[in-house]
Amino acid sequence: MKFDPATLTYNDAGLIPAIAQDAKSGEVLMMAWMNAESIQQTLETRQVTYWSRSRQEFWVKGATSGHTQALVDFKIDCDRDCILVEVNQEGPACHTGRRSCFYTAIESGEEVEILKPMI
Amino acid sequence: MKFDPATLTYNDAGLIPAIAQDAKSGEVLMMAWMNAESIQQTLETRQVTYWSRSRQEFWVKGATSGHTQALVDFKIDCDRDCILVEVNQEGPACHTGRRSCFYTAIESGEEVEILKPMI
Repeated sequence: MKFDPATLTYNDAGLIPAIAQDAKSGEVLMMAWMNAESIQQTLETRQVTYWSRSRQEFWVKGATSGHTQALVDFKIDCDRDCILVEVNQEGPACHTGRRSCFYTAIESGEEVEILKPMI
Repeated sequence: MKFDPATLTYNDAGLIPAIAQDAKSGEVLMMAWMNAESIQQTLETRQVTYWSRSRQEFWVKGATSGHTQALVDFKIDCDRDCILVEVNQEGPACHTGRRSCFYTAIESGEEVEILKPMI
């Protein structure tokens, strides 16, 4: 069946959550948002492109920082309301310079920093 | 620093997205939503507990199906607006009987089913 981004379920702002996972290590890198157009752009360019809620514009991941996400696999979930992109991540995925945005673990009720910046 | 669920960023409905990842295989299993109370409950019981948006009630994953998610690690992202739970998944995570909810890949513009039901 041909894929049509319009068949996905978006929130009131026209957005859908997209999880980025490192295609090699399996590490979950980040979660951000896409709209129908950024999905189309991601599939066409093979460069992961989100919608920036703060800037209200397309966000080609790494366009400024060089920390790009080359698309390896694009998956949707059973409810068609979440996306999983498997990527080749260039450098850190997180704006803090860490490999993943999920660098804080909760252990015995305490916040613990589990990843240091790469750069 | 002591972790307080109230310090996370929730949407207008008081919810935050939670990604579940298989602690052993690294496979991303599903994405669902939590509120502050279900986060507290997840950390206390070590059984992943979401908030069901359709039923408007706590959703102890697997309470009915037996397909529970035992909490291994609980992480938050840099923006404090997304959760990653690493879990020991009992049986399939997806209500369709598949290991993961992300069983549809987009390949060359076509939807392709990449996982069959386990049960």
